[in-house]
Amino acid sequence: MSELTVAILGATGEVGKEMLNSLLERQIPIKELRLFASKRSTGQKVAFGDKELVIETLTTDCFEGIDVVLCALDDDIARIYLPEAKKQGCLIIDNSSIYRLDEDVPLVVPEVNPDDIYTNQGIIANPNCSTIIALVAIAQLHKKATINSMIVSTYQAVSGAGKQGIEELETQVVDISEGKSVTPHVFPYQIAYNLIPQIGGFNAEGHSSEEMKLQNEGRKILHHPTLDVTCTCVRVPVVRSHSEAITLFLDNDLSVEEARQIISETDGVKLVDNLDNQGYPMPLDTSNQDLVYVGRIRKSKVGNQSVLTLWCCGDQVRKGAATNAVQILEHYIKHSN
Amino acid sequence: MSELTVAILGATGEVGKEMLNSLLERQIPIKELRLFASKRSTGQKVAFGDKELVIETLTTDCFEGIDVVLCALDDDIARIYLPEAKKQGCLIIDNSSIYRLDEDVPLVVPEVNPDDIYTNQGIIANPNCSTIIALVAIAQLHKKATINSMIVSTYQAVSGAGKQGIEELETQVVDISEGKSVTPHVFPYQIAYNLIPQIGGFNAEGHSSEEMKLQNEGRKILHHPTLDVTCTCVRVPVVRSHSEAITLFLDNDLSVEEARQIISETDGVKLVDNLDNQGYPMPLDTSNQDLVYVGRIRKSKVGNQSVLTLWCCGDQVRKGAATNAVQILEHYIKHSN
Repeated sequence: MSELTVAILGATGEVGKEMLNSLLERQIPIKELRLFASKRSTGQKVAFGDKELVIETLTTDCFEGIDVVLCALDDDIARIYLPEAKKQGCLIIDNSSIYRLDEDVPLVVPEVNPDDIYTNQGIIANPNCSTIIALVAIAQLHKKATINSMIVSTYQAVSGAGKQGIEELETQVVDISEGKSVTPHVFPYQIAYNLIPQIGGFNAEGHSSEEMKLQNEGRKILHHPTLDVTCTCVRVPVVRSHSEAITLFLDNDLSVEEARQIISETDGVKLVDNLDNQGYPMPLDTSNQDLVYVGRIRKSKVGNQSVLTLWCCGDQVRKGAATNAVQILEHYIKHSN
Repeated sequence: MSELTVAILGATGEVGKEMLNSLLERQIPIKELRLFASKRSTGQKVAFGDKELVIETLTTDCFEGIDVVLCALDDDIARIYLPEAKKQGCLIIDNSSIYRLDEDVPLVVPEVNPDDIYTNQGIIANPNCSTIIALVAIAQLHKKATINSMIVSTYQAVSGAGKQGIEELETQVVDISEGKSVTPHVFPYQIAYNLIPQIGGFNAEGHSSEEMKLQNEGRKILHHPTLDVTCTCVRVPVVRSHSEAITLFLDNDLSVEEARQIISETDGVKLVDNLDNQGYPMPLDTSNQDLVYVGRIRKSKVGNQSVLTLWCCGDQVRKGAATNAVQILEHYIKHSN
C-alpha cells in the first residue's frame, strides 16, 4: 500500500464517478481517497468498495494533506482550483484541457508515452478523449511505419458533454416519441436522430477546437511535431463510446497482415477484425470497459502513397478520460515504490 | 402534356412513394401513371394529386402499353421483372444496382452527366444513394480542379434499408425505453444508440460493397476511370438523410473561397457554411426535400498536396433515389418534345 492520499475533484460527474470505479477495479494502492464536488453535492454518500465516502465541498483551501489530485472538472472550474492545488504541492493529474499544450506539462497516454510521466513538474495532463482513443489504436503502427498524415472522421457520443449530454439525448428521444417538440440545451441543435458536425468553437480556418486537438495533442504525445491531422468531428446519438474512421499516410509500406499483427499485440487494444463473421468494432460493444477495439483494417489507394484505413471504438468516459488518468496514477505509484 | 404512360414498380416502398411525390411536385407531364407492387398490396388506393390510383399486381406480363418504367424494386426482384419490361420495349429508369456498371447502360446524376441519358439503349441506371449525394456536392469542384482521390466517411440513415429499416430503429428505441431486449432483423446488430460499420457484404480486400460503389459508380458518372475513392460506410441511428465527410485530393489548387463560390452556384446544392452562426449541414434539416447541403469547407494539410475537406447531407430516399430517377425522366421528356 502506498502512502498517498488521493483526491478526485468533480467526483459526482460522469468522469469522476468512473475514476472511482477505475481506482477500485485496478486495485490502485492508496492510503486514503477523498471526494470533492460543488456545494450542491456536499454530504452525499458514495460507495467505494466496502467503504462509504462522503462528498466534501471543493474550495480553494481543501488541498492540505492531499498528495495526488485527479481532476475531472470542466476547464473553467479547473482554472480556479488547480493553481491552488499546485501551490499546496499536490501532484495533479488533470483531465481538463487547460494545461495540455504547456511545455512543462507532459501529456500522457500510458500505452504510448509512459516515460513522459516522469518529466512532470507537478502537473500531468490527460489528453482529449478522441485523441486517446485514436492514439492507442495507431501508436504502434506509427513506431513501425511512421505516420506522416492522418485523415480522421469521428462519431462522438453524447457522454462527451457529460451527464447532461446523456440526459439530453434520453429526454429528446422520449419527447419525440410522445410527439412533443424538442428544445436543445446542452447541444446547439437536436441530437436525437441527428448529427451535429461541431464540437467546440471554430478557428479562422474553419476547424473546430475538437478537430485541432487531435493534431496538436497527437504531435505532443507521439513526439512527432510535423504530424498533420485532418479531422471532421461529429456528435452522434450514441451514449458512451466514440468511434473513428482513420486513414493513415505512412512513410513505409505496411501490409494489412502486419498491421493486424501489430494491433493484436498492442496494450490496451483488442483486434476485432473478422469480416467473415461480421466482426468489427461497434460503440455498444466497447462501452463500460477499457479496451479500444480496432478493425476494418484495409489498404487504401491515394496516388502511390502507402495508405491504411481502419475503424476504432472506445468508451470515452473510461479509456477516453477516467481510466487513462488512473493508469497515469498507477504508473506513478509503481515508479515511486 | 407528353404522351407517355409511366409505371412505378415497387410503388408502396419508401422510394416508390417518393417517386409519386416527386412526379407531382415537379409536375412531370405524363399521360397516365400506373402503380405496381407485390400481390400483398394489390387493390390499395393511393392519392396522386386529385386522382386516386389503385395498386396493380406486378407480374412479368404487366408491361403492355407502358412507355417508361421507374423501378424502385430490390435487386433480386428487379432481376426478375426488368428483362420482361425491356422485352416489351419500355424505357427503364432503374434504382436497383443490377445494371449500373453495364457498359451499355448510362448511370446518371442529372446535375452531373445529363447528356449520358441520351446514350441509353433502353435502360438508364440511377446511382447508389451515397454516390448521388457525394457527386452532386463535388462534381463542379472536379470540373475546376480535377479530383484524383477522395477519402469519404459516411453516416448513413436507416432509410437506406427501406421502410423496414426505419421501423426497426423506431421499434428498438421504444423497446429500450421500456427496458425490453432488442432483437435485430433488418440490420445485423442493434442500430438504436449504436453504429454499424458494415453496409453490404465485404470483398477480399476488406471493403464493403457500399464502399466500392462510390468508387466504381463515381468513376463512371464523372467519366474519370482513374478516380480513387477510399470509403468507410457506417450505418447511424438517423432516419432519412445520409451525411458524408469528404476529403478531396485535387490536381490544381482551389481556395476555400473559390470552392464556396462554386458550390453556391451548383444546381441541386445549397451552401450552408456560416460557422459564425453555427450554420452547417445536418441530416434533420435536409430530410423531406431535394437539395444536398454542403458546408464545413476547409483546407487540409497532407504533405504538399492540394486537399479540401467538406461535409454534406442529403435525403437519401429523395435526391439519393426517387427524385434523381424522376429528374432523369424529366430530362428525357424535355428532350423527346
